[in-house]
Amino acid sequence: MLLHLSTWAEIESFLARSKTVVIPIGSNEQHGPTGLLGTDWLCPEIIAHEAQKDGDILVGPTFNIGMAQHHLDFPGTIALRPSTFMLAIGDWCRSLAHAGFTKLYFLNGHGGNVATIEAAFSELYAEASYAGRDRGFACKLKNWWDLAGVTALANQQFPVGHGSHATPSEIAVTQWAYPDSIKSANYAPQIAPTGPIREAHDFRARYADGRMGSDPGLATPEKGGELVKLAARSLLEDVAAFGAETR
Amino acid sequence: MLLHLSTWAEIESFLARSKTVVIPIGSNEQHGPTGLLGTDWLCPEIIAHEAQKDGDILVGPTFNIGMAQHHLDFPGTIALRPSTFMLAIGDWCRSLAHAGFTKLYFLNGHGGNVATIEAAFSELYAEASYAGRDRGFACKLKNWWDLAGVTALANQQFPVGHGSHATPSEIAVTQWAYPDSIKSANYAPQIAPTGPIREAHDFRARYADGRMGSDPGLATPEKGGELVKLAARSLLEDVAAFGAETR
Amino acid sequence: MLLHLSTWAEIESFLARSKTVVIPIGSNEQHGPTGLLGTDWLCPEIIAHEAQKDGDILVGPTFNIGMAQHHLDFPGTIALRPSTFMLAIGDWCRSLAHAGFTKLYFLNGHGGNVATIEAAFSELYAEASYAGRDRGFACKLKNWWDLAGVTALANQQFPVGHGSHATPSEIAVTQWAYPDSIKSANYAPQIAPTGPIREAHDFRARYADGRMGSDPGLATPEKGGELVKLAARSLLEDVAAFGAETR
Amino acid sequence: MLLHLSTWAEIESFLARSKTVVIPIGSNEQHGPTGLLGTDWLCPEIIAHEAQKDGDILVGPTFNIGMAQHHLDFPGTIALRPSTFMLAIGDWCRSLAHAGFTKLYFLNGHGGNVATIEAAFSELYAEASYAGRDRGFACKLKNWWDLAGVTALANQQFPVGHGSHATPSEIAVTQWAYPDSIKSANYAPQIAPTGPIREAHDFRARYADGRMGSDPGLATPEKGGELVKLAARSLLEDVAAFGAETR
Amino acid sequence: MLLHLSTWAEIESFLARSKTVVIPIGSNEQHGPTGLLGTDWLCPEIIAHEAQKDGDILVGPTFNIGMAQHHLDFPGTIALRPSTFMLAIGDWCRSLAHAGFTKLYFLNGHGGNVATIEAAFSELYAEASYAGRDRGFACKLKNWWDLAGVTALANQQFPVGHGSHATPSEIAVTQWAYPDSIKSANYAPQIAPTGPIREAHDFRARYADGRMGSDPGLATPEKGGELVKLAARSLLEDVAAFGAETR
Amino acid sequence: MLLHLSTWAEIESFLARSKTVVIPIGSNEQHGPTGLLGTDWLCPEIIAHEAQKDGDILVGPTFNIGMAQHHLDFPGTIALRPSTFMLAIGDWCRSLAHAGFTKLYFLNGHGGNVATIEAAFSELYAEASYAGRDRGFACKLKNWWDLAGVTALANQQFPVGHGSHATPSEIAVTQWAYPDSIKSANYAPQIAPTGPIREAHDFRARYADGRMGSDPGLATPEKGGELVKLAARSLLEDVAAFGAETR
Repeated sequence: MLLHLSTWAEIESFLARSKTVVIPIGSNEQHGPTGLLGTDWLCPEIIAHEAQKDGDILVGPTFNIGMAQHHLDFPGTIALRPSTFMLAIGDWCRSLAHAGFTKLYFLNGHGGNVATIEAAFSELYAEASYAGRDRGFACKLKNWWDLAGVTALANQQFPVGHGSHATPSEIAVTQWAYPDSIKSANYAPQIAPTGPIREAHDFRARYADGRMGSDPGLATPEKGGELVKLAARSLLEDVAAFGAETR
Repeated sequence: MLLHLSTWAEIESFLARSKTVVIPIGSNEQHGPTGLLGTDWLCPEIIAHEAQKDGDILVGPTFNIGMAQHHLDFPGTIALRPSTFMLAIGDWCRSLAHAGFTKLYFLNGHGGNVATIEAAFSELYAEASYAGRDRGFACKLKNWWDLAGVTALANQQFPVGHGSHATPSEIAVTQWAYPDSIKSANYAPQIAPTGPIREAHDFRARYADGRMGSDPGLATPEKGGELVKLAARSLLEDVAAFGAETR
Repeated sequence: MLLHLSTWAEIESFLARSKTVVIPIGSNEQHGPTGLLGTDWLCPEIIAHEAQKDGDILVGPTFNIGMAQHHLDFPGTIALRPSTFMLAIGDWCRSLAHAGFTKLYFLNGHGGNVATIEAAFSELYAEASYAGRDRGFACKLKNWWDLAGVTALANQQFPVGHGSHATPSEIAVTQWAYPDSIKSANYAPQIAPTGPIREAHDFRARYADGRMGSDPGLATPEKGGELVKLAARSLLEDVAAFGAETR
Repeated sequence: MLLHLSTWAEIESFLARSKTVVIPIGSNEQHGPTGLLGTDWLCPEIIAHEAQKDGDILVGPTFNIGMAQHHLDFPGTIALRPSTFMLAIGDWCRSLAHAGFTKLYFLNGHGGNVATIEAAFSELYAEASYAGRDRGFACKLKNWWDLAGVTALANQQFPVGHGSHATPSEIAVTQWAYPDSIKSANYAPQIAPTGPIREAHDFRARYADGRMGSDPGLATPEKGGELVKLAARSLLEDVAAFGAETR
Repeated sequence: MLLHLSTWAEIESFLARSKTVVIPIGSNEQHGPTGLLGTDWLCPEIIAHEAQKDGDILVGPTFNIGMAQHHLDFPGTIALRPSTFMLAIGDWCRSLAHAGFTKLYFLNGHGGNVATIEAAFSELYAEASYAGRDRGFACKLKNWWDLAGVTALANQQFPVGHGSHATPSEIAVTQWAYPDSIKSANYAPQIAPTGPIREAHDFRARYADGRMGSDPGLATPEKGGELVKLAARSLLEDVAAFGAETR
Repeated sequence: MLLHLSTWAEIESFLARSKTVVIPIGSNEQHGPTGLLGTDWLCPEIIAHEAQKDGDILVGPTFNIGMAQHHLDFPGTIALRPSTFMLAIGDWCRSLAHAGFTKLYFLNGHGGNVATIEAAFSELYAEASYAGRDRGFACKLKNWWDLAGVTALANQQFPVGHGSHATPSEIAVTQWAYPDSIKSANYAPQIAPTGPIREAHDFRARYADGRMGSDPGLATPEKGGELVKLAARSLLEDVAAFGAETR
């Protein structure tokens, strides 16, 4: 069930049977010469939308801009400062909690988001902690590649050249979902270098075409489909477990 | 051309021929008993995506959460505080300007966003004004219903019962684009009341089913299609004019 | 009754008969070659102070600095960033509400303030909306030229050359109240150009002497007096209506 | 010369002969059973306006709301949080400095403002310090009672019962300037108690009628006039010295 | 009793007999050619740690970074912006108050901290004041040199050349506590100049070696020991008085 | 070399041979029935202070309060909100970078700090990224248990009952450094439970005595000494590698 294609009355009904909502969250940022700028928000959106076809979960609108400051020297990247990102996550959570949701599940598509999202959760919890009261809701962050079995499958699909940015697995997922937007390029080197992540100038100097450690040329729509199907199944299980969790 | 389905290299190429980017911006909020929660971000997205099929414009990812605090007592609404909204708009603009865009065109789908978006633009301009320098980019806000001819068409389609929230015109647009998500309900009264907008408690007390002044039962997918086609054409003209503007 | 010339005990007594307070709000910014820098805060102050002579309303101190970033390249302008302006409006409102006022009426003298003031109101309402409680007070923004009959009178007085900044109507109001501070200059062109409002550099480049679309040479103290008398009467009616309003 | 009754061109001319501007700053807060709510912003305004009749100084609009949280339980008080106050002072200073003023002189009327104003100055300086550059302007805070000779005169006028809030000296100043707004009351006790200043609840519990250590019944308009005349003369000297100061 | 060398259970026990906690607070900033960078946080730490050996007080961890923007052009200085400093003080206080402490005593070692700490306290009180409730705790700021008898002793020890920054008294205190870190230098001039404090560039231009008005060559460990012993005794008395204070 | 026991001139000399500074960073929070409240800031301080005896590194003052909101229901805990923590880290880094340090190495003692510190680094980098310039310095976060060999040694010392909060390894480190502050208690259960971390109420409900997964009874000062010696050696190597790193 997609929240944005529902009415408020339908959400009211859903809340009578579940207090859990799934929010795809990612980033809009360069993904090398062939990766789509939307890759990191499209992947969790694709997986969550696929999952809700087979299970009674509620999927909210996609939080499509994240912590991508290091990619800003590649055009098309849109980044929130961590402080802005935290405030926005806070307002999303407060809104959903006000409606009665008690389990807020963020399915994440961007490794660079993790620290800031966790900090945002702590900021929300801290409000309650200083005030000496229950927060009333719990937040959970799950990267889609950390869903049960997914990284194992990706490792099997891409034993070399997976890397950490513009990876063949994430590109494969978007190829499966957007077959009309498959791009091609020559990669030089075939497998991109790795190293630290700092400001945008430093990033572009280190990673000339934007990739980190990856060979996106390994991606195929078929492999993407396998990843999506597995991730969607695992997501339903993980969401159910989170929803069932009590103190 | 959709930014999120492009690579950074494609955006670099686009920048060689245009410095204008279109951002659909809206809100995820209750729209009465039959309106989709996503109505206000879906409408500008639908129109902008339609327009880019016929013209060489670049459409960015949709800014899908806005100033909707007054709707929070209806579940499914997600709202940013104005202060958060302004910070996020600022980061979007700074990111796009850093890439080289000099004309940032926001196609808006939510009247409640207008004041905060304008304040956000002023905040951005103020940075340059205090520093005594050019800002380097210009921002423009356009509500989709203010595109040339659109309100006239809506008035002709819905001479009574248009209202100001959960209007038949916006619902028609989403019906055209999402025919599988057309909802129905009995409206009582057929035309909703009107009045001021304050906090969420007050809003729900005044507007029992969420509508303001409207009769959404008048919406049809066909009328929505007419609106989209006209708005898309007008958008291309308006974007071209903005792009051509010099001091 | 002027709040700042009253004691707290007198305000306590006033609150026993009315919960409404009127705040003149404006901006201190250039107003062309002959307009006073204080024009935008003096006008609502003049009108409100005049009105309280004839009706039992309470007029607070004047909020004299607003959203004027675009005028900063003309000396004497003092501007608040929108974010600062919103925080300050918030603290004014919280203070007055804490005292027991439930209707906060802002009589505004600067068009550039409107978006930010509305955003500030929404920020205040949002606090209550997220918390699921009544705000306890209502805010209203009224531009003095939107008081009943005022624009009609100004149009009659100044059928051409009214414009939108450094208008003859606002300058006439200050001429009536501060006859010792009437300035003169040659205007070239007689009617100033119009266009968009962006950062200060851009503004000064577009509007060489600071006016927008206006011919301030049409102003006279007599016309100002007519405007003040009418606006003051309309203000009393509008404040009474707001005070009487219930949900 | 009053900034708000001048045009931008007149300020431009003034800047050719002086880079100093005087800002009266105070607070709108309860001042006991007979003190005006505006006392703390009226006093520096009265003195500065008087001074500019006799000397070529520029007096800006009055910053009329300050750090008055402790008075909030007395109606009519309007307070800025220190954080808001600092941001607003910052924007005033940035605006005036942008125009070319290099000496920003704040004539203060409220002891409770001192810490926050000093913190605001440090915040402004810190921006330049981190950036490794000159700030380009200097800020000075002067309480009107610290102007040369003023406290000595007040001690002579009011050898007992001066106290620290709702003092006879400040009330005398407003009596001189606003003779139509002189109030009277019985004071019990004649001299109010003293003690610490904390939150508003605590303040009202300690200081039943709002005074601290004072007997405002000693105030007369004549004594107020003496104070104003002396303070105005001293202000001119102090402003001249500040303006002449070089590193 | 040192909080950081205690367990939470020991603090729980302490709270059963006292609700007061002492926080040494200072700054890490240049102290002239021979003063330790830590001087301003070491002094209150030394005194408070000494005092807790002789009396049943609880001393928290040292707040070691403060308002030192003006010293930033001397390496080793670490400064918080006033706004950051206030937020951090706020979180310390909220944490300690949440645990049950009602008297928060800050023993300060840096004059430049005073305004910001006082503003931070007001910010905390303001939260309660706007909300119309008791704050539940009281804050007190005491400079260690303002403890009973301390300045008198310092004046006796250093009748000339005490000055206001890198003073012989504070340097003597650190010499007594850290005899292995006593430094020496030639001072030119022997007594440093005095003047205003503004941004870091201005400060370094005025005060070439970082001192203000002082001759640190007068410091000896013995004098430092005398100061510490006296200050520690006075601290115990002052803390006891604060703890005993009721409204 | 300890920064706080040095003069600014000594730091200036150090900068001529190294641009790297080490900042111990931790948290002041409950550590179970026997762990010191200061454990998480004492451990990195102990290790860094030990290391600087054997190598020419500069160790700054300890950042002793961190992200500990979940521990607030145990008295003695002092927590910064993530947003405050980020601002403070930012000011530390800006101060040190202004002095000329280009490698800022944070030796961390609290797992709960990691996300916020990383977010703080990204916030700092983002400033430069939006502005299109080099940041000029690099930040590195290292948990002391992630120094080469340390976790392996801890696993060998404590094959069972290490856990994740109030671990025997961290308690052993403080026992070695503060032998007079070794505490004892009966643990029930001997090994504490594990689970998620949310707000303080939830935390105390889940973890009755504050431990997570650990048996602190296994700690001995001797094991602590082994850990410190190894960690100090590894720290010197890691700092040297970071200092030598170029793009």
